This record gives sequence, C-alpha cells and structure tokens, in this order.
Amino acid sequence: MGQDGSPAHKRPSGSGGGLPTSTVANGGGRGGGGGRGLLPRGRQMQKTFNNIKITILCGFVTILVLRGTIGVGNLGSSSADAVNQNIIEETNRILAEIRSDSDPTDLDDPHETETMNLNATYALGPKITGWDSQRKVWLNQNPEFPSSVNGRARILLLTGSPPKPCDNPIGDHYLLKSVKNKIDYCRLHGIEIVYNMAHLDKELAGYWAKLPMIRRLLLSHPEVEWIWWMDSDALFTDILFQIPLARYEKHNLVIHGYPDLLFDQKSWIALNTGSFLLRNCQWSLDLLDAWAPMGPKGPIRDEAGKVLTAYLKGRPAFEADDQSALIYLLLSQKDTWMEKVFVENQYYLHGFWEGLVDRYEEMVEKYHPGLGDERWPFVTHFVGCKPCGSYADYAVERCLKSMERAFNFADNQVLKLYGFGHRGLLSPKIKRIRNETVTPLESVDKFDIRRTPVEFKPQN
Amino acid sequence: MGQDGSPAHKRPSGSGGGLPTSTVANGGGRGGGGGRGLLPRGRQMQKTFNNIKITILCGFVTILVLRGTIGVGNLGSSSADAVNQNIIEETNRILAEIRSDSDPTDLDDPHETETMNLNATYALGPKITGWDSQRKVWLNQNPEFPSSVNGRARILLLTGSPPKPCDNPIGDHYLLKSVKNKIDYCRLHGIEIVYNMAHLDKELAGYWAKLPMIRRLLLSHPEVEWIWWMDSDALFTDILFQIPLARYEKHNLVIHGYPDLLFDQKSWIALNTGSFLLRNCQWSLDLLDAWAPMGPKGPIRDEAGKVLTAYLKGRPAFEADDQSALIYLLLSQKDTWMEKVFVENQYYLHGFWEGLVDRYEEMVEKYHPGLGDERWPFVTHFVGCKPCGSYADYAVERCLKSMERAFNFADNQVLKLYGFGHRGLLSPKIKRIRNETVTPLESVDKFDIRRTPVEFKPQN
Repeated sequence: MGQDGSPAHKRPSGSGGGLPTSTVANGGGRGGGGGRGLLPRGRQMQKTFNNIKITILCGFVTILVLRGTIGVGNLGSSSADAVNQNIIEETNRILAEIRSDSDPTDLDDPHETETMNLNATYALGPKITGWDSQRKVWLNQNPEFPSSVNGRARILLLTGSPPKPCDNPIGDHYLLKSVKNKIDYCRLHGIEIVYNMAHLDKELAGYWAKLPMIRRLLLSHPEVEWIWWMDSDALFTDILFQIPLARYEKHNLVIHGYPDLLFDQKSWIALNTGSFLLRNCQWSLDLLDAWAPMGPKGPIRDEAGKVLTAYLKGRPAFEADDQSALIYLLLSQKDTWMEKVFVENQYYLHGFWEGLVDRYEEMVEKYHPGLGDERWPFVTHFVGCKPCGSYADYAVERCLKSMERAFNFADNQVLKLYGFGHRGLLSPKIKRIRNETVTPLESVDKFDIRRTPVEFKPQN
Repeated sequence: MGQDGSPAHKRPSGSGGGLPTSTVANGGGRGGGGGRGLLPRGRQMQKTFNNIKITILCGFVTILVLRGTIGVGNLGSSSADAVNQNIIEETNRILAEIRSDSDPTDLDDPHETETMNLNATYALGPKITGWDSQRKVWLNQNPEFPSSVNGRARILLLTGSPPKPCDNPIGDHYLLKSVKNKIDYCRLHGIEIVYNMAHLDKELAGYWAKLPMIRRLLLSHPEVEWIWWMDSDALFTDILFQIPLARYEKHNLVIHGYPDLLFDQKSWIALNTGSFLLRNCQWSLDLLDAWAPMGPKGPIRDEAGKVLTAYLKGRPAFEADDQSALIYLLLSQKDTWMEKVFVENQYYLHGFWEGLVDRYEEMVEKYHPGLGDERWPFVTHFVGCKPCGSYADYAVERCLKSMERAFNFADNQVLKLYGFGHRGLLSPKIKRIRNETVTPLESVDKFDIRRTPVEFKPQN
C-alpha cells in the first residue's frame, strides 16, 4: 500500500505559474471607473500593483485546484507506483465482485427453499444410530485404514476460515501463518489436516460452522479416532508436546476449562471451544445433535442468545454462540453428558494469549518445549484479536505483534532441526544457530523431535 | 481500502468562510501611499471593494487548503467506516514496521559480514560426499523411519512464500487457498508438506530461495525419498492423479518440459522449475551445487543473466533465474546430468494455465479425474499472474478469476466425498450434490479416493 500521493495533505508551496484570465483584476479595473490614461502616475502604479496582487492570488488558487485535479505530486513518482495503484484498485473491484457472489448459476438447494419452521428442532442431518457398530464393522473390513498408526490413535485436525477474503487485508496473511504453524505441528506428529473454507449449512454459519463439518468428517472418515477442532486464531507454541491420549480412554470430549467456573459459577468462559477433541463415536453424534439447535441464524439464534445471557455468568448480550451453548447443554443435562467429558487444565489445550505472549523470552531462558503448560504453552489462542474482521476486542497493534511473536516462538522450535532461528521474536529474518557440517545426520539424530517423543507428566 | 477522501479530486465549491489575515491587502494598502482619510469617497469605495475581493479570494484559498487537511468529504460517513478505516490505517503502520524489520536484536551473521568475493564460486554449504551410503546406513539403523510407506516411496512437498505480507492484499488470500489446495491433495496421498517462509540465505532470495531449502531438507530428512518443489502459484487440479514413481526408478530429477524445445531450440521455457521432483541422493546434492553459482544476488546474478539471455532462445534481458540457469546447466553439461533427468510431458506435472482454465466445464462433461493430462490437468500453474506482487504479466481480473475457477474445480473433487460441490466455478458457496443417508459408510466406500488409486497410462 503506497503513500497517499494526493497533494491535499501537503502544504502549498512555491509561487504561481502561468497567467490565468484575471477577471477580478479586470473587474477591479472596470469598477474603478475611468481609463488608465486619466489617473495620476502614483495611482496608476498602485492600481497596477493591486492588479498584480490579484493576478498572483488567482494564479495561486488556480494552481491549487489544478494540483488536486492532475496530482502534481505524482508527476515525479515512478510509473511503477501508478501501476501498483491501478492493480490494487482493479483488485478491489474484482474482490467486491467475488464477495457479492454474482455467479448466475446458483441452483436450488433444499435447505434454502424450505420455510423455517420455528417449532421444529433444527437437525444437522438424518439421525444416525448404531454408529459404533457400523464403524467397527467397517474397520474390520478395511484393515488398510486402521484407526491407530504406530500405536497411536489417528487424529484429524479440523480448522478453517471463511471462503472470502478478509475485510482487513492483514487477516489473510495471519491466516496463512496460522495454517503454516498447524502444518508444521501436524507433520511432526502424524496428524492429518482438513482446512475448511466452505459453509456446509447456511443456517449454521460463523462460529457454528464447525458443527456440520465435524459431523461430516466423523461420518466420512471412520478410520479417524479423534476429530480435533482448532480455531484459526489459535497457534501451536509447544511443538514437542503431544496430546496425552491415554488420559482420555474413558472420555469422548476433551476440552480446556475449569470445573469450578463451570459448575459453581456457570461462567460463560468456563470452557473454550477454540480447541477441543471429539471421539468418533455415537455419543459424539448425539452430542452434536443436542448442541446444534441453538445455532440456526436468525430468530432462533437471537432468542437462544437471550437465554444464554440470562443463564451464564458474565455473558454479554449477543446471539447464541457455540461455546455458551455447549456450556449450557452440559450444565442443564449434566447427568447425560458429563461422565464422558474431560475438562482439561493441566496443560494449555487452549491458552489465552494475554498472559503468555510477553513471557516467551523468559520461557526460553528457564524452561524447554514439551511441558505444554504455563511454563511453555501448548497452544496460544488469540481470542478477541480477530485479524480477519474489523471489530477486534483488543488493540490492533498489540494483537498483530503478539501473533507475530507467537508464530516465531513456534517457528524457532521447527527451524531448530534445520539449524536456524529467528533473529528476534518480531523478526521475519532468520540466522544460523548451528554451523553446517559434512555429517548432517548427527544433527538429525539429535534434533528431530519425532525421535524423542515426550511423555506428559501432569503437575497435579 | 476506503475511498480516498481527499478533496483534491473534487472541484472546489462554495464560498469563503472566515477572515484570514490579509497581508496582501495590508501590503497593498501600505504600498499605495497615503492614509484612507486622504482619499476621495469614490476611491475609498473602490479601495474597500478591492480589499473585499482580496479577502474573499484569500478566504477561498484558505478553505481549499483546510479541506485538504481535514477532509471535509469524510464528515458525513458512519462511525463504523471510520473505525474500519482507522483499523486499516493502523494495520498499515504496523505492517510497515514489520516489513522494515526494525527488530533491534539483529545479531551478526557470518554470511553478512564476509565480503563478497566475486572470484570464488558460491557454495550452498560444505561439500557433502558419500551421502548415498551415509543415508543407507541411517535408514538401516532407524527402521521406524522407512523411506517407503505402504509400498510407496516417501515424498515431501516443499512450497512457500515470502515472510512478509504481500504487496497486493489479495495475494495473501490466494496463497491461503493455494496451501489449502495442497493440504487436501497431500492428505489424500500421504505426502508431507513443508511450507517455507524463511530465507535461509540472503544471497539466494527470490526464486532461488528454493535451492538452499531443498538441500537443507534432503540432509535433514534422510527418510524422505523425493523432495517435490511446487510453486505457490501452482494448484493441484487432478486430485485423483498420482505421480507414477515407477517411471522414474532410474532417474533423480523429474521435471516437466519438451526435449525438442530443450535440445534443438535451447528455449528458456524448455523446462519448468515450478513443479519438479528431486531424489534424495548424492547426485542431487551435486546438481544443487552446480546449479547455485548463478544465483547470488547482485553483480553475479546480473552478469549471469546476460549469459543466459545470450544463450537461451526467447529469453528476455533480466537477472539470472533458477529455471534458465538449470536449462543452461543441463545443456552445457549434458553428458554429466541428462542421463538421470526425466523430461516429463505425458501429464501436466506443470500445466500452463492459459490453455486450461476455460475448459474445466468441458472436462467435467467429457472426462474424469485421474488422467492428469490435457483432458484433466494434474497441476494448473499460474505462471505470470503473481497475485502476491505488483507486476503481473497478465491482466489482474483474468488471473484472479482463473485462479478462483481452478481452486473450485479442485475443491469439487475433494468435497465430493462429503456430498458437496461449488455452485459454480466462480462461487465460494457450496450445495449438496448427494442426499445424506443413515448409512454414510456406503458413500465412503464409493467416493473416498484413497480406496481407488488410479494407475497412470501414458498416451505415448
């Protein structure tokens, strides 16, 4: 984005140029009465002087107006800037077209034509039953698609973002960095990624869009044992740490939160749906079915929002969100669900960014990767930063710089194998941290994290 | 990016406002000689009239200047626009800061302090010898990291983009879509991805940056059999097609191109380095070492560019690029290298976009995925579109819309398993293409492409 070349922000400088028609001067001359020849010399000089003043002033005005029209400030700039500006303007026009989705080939979609029946409960899809046995049979019949690989249950990480460009241009850049961060972590831990950029259900758009996609993936990937939803504004910051799946053998939903905030205070932030794991089983399909009804956009979501605000402590007034709705569901139907829900807080499956991002240098000094908790957070989650949208809850500068720091903090752990590290946590540039040798495999043995899996030891 | 609110593009309208100090009038008064009292009434009126004219003119000028400064055109816009504009301006400021990399903790880097010796040949790193046996020993010692998985050689796809936000904001959005496209393909084919956003070597920046990264990955990932470099502007468009590795058992470099363009015409586009495979072996390390010397930015790259332009048919005059340099190397040292180079054109390992993007609907009508060639291109490569930069070789609109089409054409093949497809090749919206059932595993059996690998049958 180049400098605004408009001269309107620059103070006028320099004197007038050419001689515009000097109507004021003429008017002045005519208004004065009498021709020139009749005036004394002194008066004539004064008159001439006045005319010159007015001419200069008019010339000045004309130049100001002309500068605004033709952009004199741009005459000296390179044609490259002009080309750049043209490209950006054309891009914006095309963007607007894409955003308005002016594709004429829109076809009928049953979801759109059916009248919304407010009395009917919204359904994610036809009710599936016996999924556990269906899945078990399928796995037996398809041994080339086991649900465990190298002794570890298969995990699929689901994340995503809206299909259209971000309102704030920097948003797409941070989405890109965020997905690179996830690619790195998942490559090192044998986790598959699905990056969703489609709204499977118009009614469940926004933060609710994860529900239909999770269901669709559970049913389409019987070989996957766990679906791990992760927000696009959450970054991995402990590249070594591994989800301690053995902890959850008897559970189907693993979510970060605090039991006292949940059961005692009924706080709307008792749990965080920015990063959670859901097992591929009938229970999970049932949970999704029970969770979804507050989601459909419009009157249902609005009314549900009021219920949630009344019920949950600290919740502001806004439409129903998936997190509040889940908390409400788990509290109001505690006996049905809680036995299979693991409320995890021994490591940062979700780590709220504010208390973490300023301590990265201290962490490097005192601790090491693999801890996953407040000493070296597994996930740093930029709740409220919203780089893709326009209305963040936090200052833009604080957010962007913090995200940059988190990204580089994680990237350093990845680059270590390759012998590099960032020059500073705000720097995109890297430097060598280790000399190259003619025996590179010694470094591989030493630094490839896949060769040294870390075991989680909870502090409590 | 909001409207440019500067009034400099608007014609001035309205009359003057306040009364600025009228130095011209005063000067005029003083220059005229004599006080007011000494002038006849008519002359006094004329003088007054002149002063009023000058006052009005000066007021007019003042208003023009003020409008430019405070942006009167903006006073009526909504506060939301103002907030949005503020956020975007602040973002730009931060971006400029990040781009200028003002991190004070820059440390010394040996590469930077050494004086460039133009007589010395540039080296990617210390000369590695005996890599084949080093690697073989390592593989034997580390059976948990085999170079083949499920009977298929392990491939690592390397792609990337510069660490800073794109000059053109839409660029980051297409980089995001491009990496999602690669994530989808690679998930379905068991290929690992490294997304590089770091310059490992300042001298080899730009299109040359792939060389040091490829070398680093070969040496750091002995378990990987092939490194597959793919440009960020290349999209997978045949999700089913699989690289026919058996074809290349005796080769170490697989690259798209045409032998007659290469050997007969010495054309600078005889091969395309936007998508190629390099085997993990000593030969490849040697090739990289022989390839790199034309790359160092500055006089070396400039001079090398002249050599390449003189030698290669059709090459414009510009600094040495990696593609021309490789062609030159393979031609000038044909006997050393060509035996192990497979010049592939039986499918579109690289498919130039212009002749392909308008035919996608026709392809859907007549053909099917898995062919990989002009009937259903494996890769559609948007050479010259440069959405991240400013100086594209093709019209912006044509490029962006074509990339959108290619992305959706590929995405349809991925979404098919889930029962969805885009409403049109330009539409981000999707629709159901298959009703949901209570027996979803039937769809899995039918549509999961991993269950129906396709065998490549060359037409020649």
